[in-house]
Amino acid sequence: MLPYKSLIQLDRNSPLSLHIQVCNSFIALISNGTLQPSALLPSSRVLAELIGIHRNTVKLAYEELISQGWADSVPRKGIFVLSKLPVISRRRLPEPQREPRQQDPFKWKNKFAGFTPGRNLQTAKLTIDDGFPDVRLTPIDELMREYRSISRKSYGRNFLKYGSAKGSEHLRSSIAHYLYHTRGITVSPENILITKGSQMGIYLAAQLLLNNADNIAVGVSNYLHSDNTFLHQDAKLIRIPVDEYGMDIDHLEKVLRRRSIKAVYVIPHHHFPTTVTLSMERRLKLLKLAKEHRFAIIEDDYDFDFHYENKPYLPLASIDHHQNVIYIGSVTKTVAPALRIGFMIGHTPFINAAASLRELIDKQGDTVLEEAFAVLFDNGEMERYFRKTIKIYKERRDLFCKILQADFSNTIKFKIPEGGLAVWAQFDQKINLGKLAERAVKNGLLIDDGNFYKNESFSANGLRMGFASLNATEMVTALEKLKQVI
Amino acid sequence: MLPYKSLIQLDRNSPLSLHIQVCNSFIALISNGTLQPSALLPSSRVLAELIGIHRNTVKLAYEELISQGWADSVPRKGIFVLSKLPVISRRRLPEPQREPRQQDPFKWKNKFAGFTPGRNLQTAKLTIDDGFPDVRLTPIDELMREYRSISRKSYGRNFLKYGSAKGSEHLRSSIAHYLYHTRGITVSPENILITKGSQMGIYLAAQLLLNNADNIAVGVSNYLHSDNTFLHQDAKLIRIPVDEYGMDIDHLEKVLRRRSIKAVYVIPHHHFPTTVTLSMERRLKLLKLAKEHRFAIIEDDYDFDFHYENKPYLPLASIDHHQNVIYIGSVTKTVAPALRIGFMIGHTPFINAAASLRELIDKQGDTVLEEAFAVLFDNGEMERYFRKTIKIYKERRDLFCKILQADFSNTIKFKIPEGGLAVWAQFDQKINLGKLAERAVKNGLLIDDGNFYKNESFSANGLRMGFASLNATEMVTALEKLKQVI
Repeated sequence: MLPYKSLIQLDRNSPLSLHIQVCNSFIALISNGTLQPSALLPSSRVLAELIGIHRNTVKLAYEELISQGWADSVPRKGIFVLSKLPVISRRRLPEPQREPRQQDPFKWKNKFAGFTPGRNLQTAKLTIDDGFPDVRLTPIDELMREYRSISRKSYGRNFLKYGSAKGSEHLRSSIAHYLYHTRGITVSPENILITKGSQMGIYLAAQLLLNNADNIAVGVSNYLHSDNTFLHQDAKLIRIPVDEYGMDIDHLEKVLRRRSIKAVYVIPHHHFPTTVTLSMERRLKLLKLAKEHRFAIIEDDYDFDFHYENKPYLPLASIDHHQNVIYIGSVTKTVAPALRIGFMIGHTPFINAAASLRELIDKQGDTVLEEAFAVLFDNGEMERYFRKTIKIYKERRDLFCKILQADFSNTIKFKIPEGGLAVWAQFDQKINLGKLAERAVKNGLLIDDGNFYKNESFSANGLRMGFASLNATEMVTALEKLKQVI
Repeated sequence: MLPYKSLIQLDRNSPLSLHIQVCNSFIALISNGTLQPSALLPSSRVLAELIGIHRNTVKLAYEELISQGWADSVPRKGIFVLSKLPVISRRRLPEPQREPRQQDPFKWKNKFAGFTPGRNLQTAKLTIDDGFPDVRLTPIDELMREYRSISRKSYGRNFLKYGSAKGSEHLRSSIAHYLYHTRGITVSPENILITKGSQMGIYLAAQLLLNNADNIAVGVSNYLHSDNTFLHQDAKLIRIPVDEYGMDIDHLEKVLRRRSIKAVYVIPHHHFPTTVTLSMERRLKLLKLAKEHRFAIIEDDYDFDFHYENKPYLPLASIDHHQNVIYIGSVTKTVAPALRIGFMIGHTPFINAAASLRELIDKQGDTVLEEAFAVLFDNGEMERYFRKTIKIYKERRDLFCKILQADFSNTIKFKIPEGGLAVWAQFDQKINLGKLAERAVKNGLLIDDGNFYKNESFSANGLRMGFASLNATEMVTALEKLKQVI
């Protein structure tokens, strides 16, 4: 007889009843080949004694095993494993494998296998990031207060049910007001889809706009995740030069003479990674071209909220006369990366279709969180947050740039950014950023190796250096550590 | 001179400074054609008096207007609107339009235009839903307590930063334990991707498995959102009959002789919409076929947690010897629809690729919420929740079925479901469910019209009737109202 006493492990704290545990143990033994087809199982009396449970529990387990089709009872002979089971010897799931095996268990598109996952910053200590907000300033207490208050009210409980794929009506309305007051965009809540951050807006727009081999115009330098999102649709990237006034729209015009494009992806302020602002003249020309050539402008304006000289240009969406602009914004990027809220704005049929597609992706957002954010927009908390952080981030930008000027004048070239949370730092060609990042980690500083900013057409020896998430002490320490390893 | 006093509206409570507001007003006037190219602007003294602000504020506004490239200063003559602007007459965004216009502003794939959005249940009163949990039982206070407690700790603040696209390591580990103890699935956290609900798992699997014109096997009756997700990939649905033992795997075997399939989508318990359970024999045969023919099994097991006779079959994933199974589960569907948490399990290269794709879709989940759920799994709160709700839902199922038997025996045929939150009710053919739903709404009861359960191959006159979200009083009232309108 098999060593059932050790093979059958029972857990009296498990939510599963004992007889189900016994039954499951037998299924495992049959399934992994330990118990072969037609094998006789021990009598209920014997097994009960062996593993120390009541005999009736074993009987229940056997009944269960029989009812699940693994065994059968032969009168006066006992319980047998079924003979006809197509049993195959069992293996536990192997240890995690990072690389595809020689032969995958099934065929699939493995085009993401070489994709480098984003860096996990949740466990990192001292970091010069890509330009993220300081989560210590996030109004999380205020948010939690509203979240809790809503979820405790009986009407608030209803927000736990299925709602609209477009997102909370309340938040869409609050965001419509906020956009009108901060940047002159006139839209109704029907034109707004609440997303899980600007990335989802880019993804939805790409899915709806781009087919196989369609052209999309993007900057020579560009945000890698958006490039990858367009490439995932098998679209063709048409690279347009970007200078100090943003994307070169005259160049785009020339391209349009030769071929048609479905969309232009543009980050008017501030271009990623170089932080330049698209000039007003180019903005108007881009809108004119869009109307003439009937392409969509995907305006990624994640960085609007942070301007230190108080003079952001109005977005393309606010002066778009012909609904060519799909406007993408982020609450996430201004409040906290892991609080996933953003928005996408466009003409209603397009937004409705995006909402339908979104139902296939993840049904909808977390309505209680959306309602809580709506309250923070309505009661002025978000405005206070922006006022407070702009003041702090301006000081941090100034200190950061002062240190860069004083201590890195031989190694780093940069311009003081008018807005946003990062400096575009061009390193001396002699400095290998990959090796620099390695040395920095050993010195207690996490910094990027610059590969995220490169593509097949752009290879500047540069880094976005985020200043917003570091207070003065941390900033001094971080740049001191960087200086040591340069 | 233009009536600037009424054209320029200032808001002293706006976060924008006054001079920016004045500047933005001028941009709007230029942009909408009210101020034509080369028009002369009023002097700063005149405008200051007209609109009641300090003259220096007007000067600042004009400087801003010039610096943004809308106007120019001519010495001793004044400030003029630039002559070269390609200004087009401005329109406000039109009222929301539900239908695509004759001519869209740009070309896009409008295949979702006819898609019916999911019903918003957040504002509904008395509803017989599709089989959703009762949000009044959701452990929202416990969740909020953990959410708040985590976000107040300094290490918890770090969860607001960018993390892993796979989701919280802690939650993946908690779910690995939970799956092992409740259903014998042996996986490491590396095999788990935290999603925003089971729908995202289906979507990711479809994107990775299916190309244009690939075959996927699904039930003759099936969950419409998964059908649509596969069709979105331009895959071809091969419909397999479903009887009282679930999907007919012998039929699938015959299909496989003639053509190859990339994947089988199956809901082993309980098939949607008919609530049947896939028999153990068929489960084993399906696994055997998957190995031989190298296809993937997408096992949607959203309904595992609710079993009233305490004898769920083990999932395919727990007896899968060759990693053919992609296992999809939901916390959302068992706790609250708007708390978006689910999981997807598979062999590591596949899960890694799914995580990379997920970075393009929405970067990652809300880590603080994930950490809070992890605590509820670890401290036994989830187990208590399941114990409590299973008891309550069993009572509700019994009462619901008793009333159906007593009062609807002539009009509704059904079997008492062993698990899950809904009864599959087949209505007498004479009853038009669309009209019934209309009459019910007028009588104060929201009930589906049955179209969600139909497809090109399945047209039963049936409804899933969810019993879980109604307490005894509501249930009696709801069914009384239904009886009145039948």
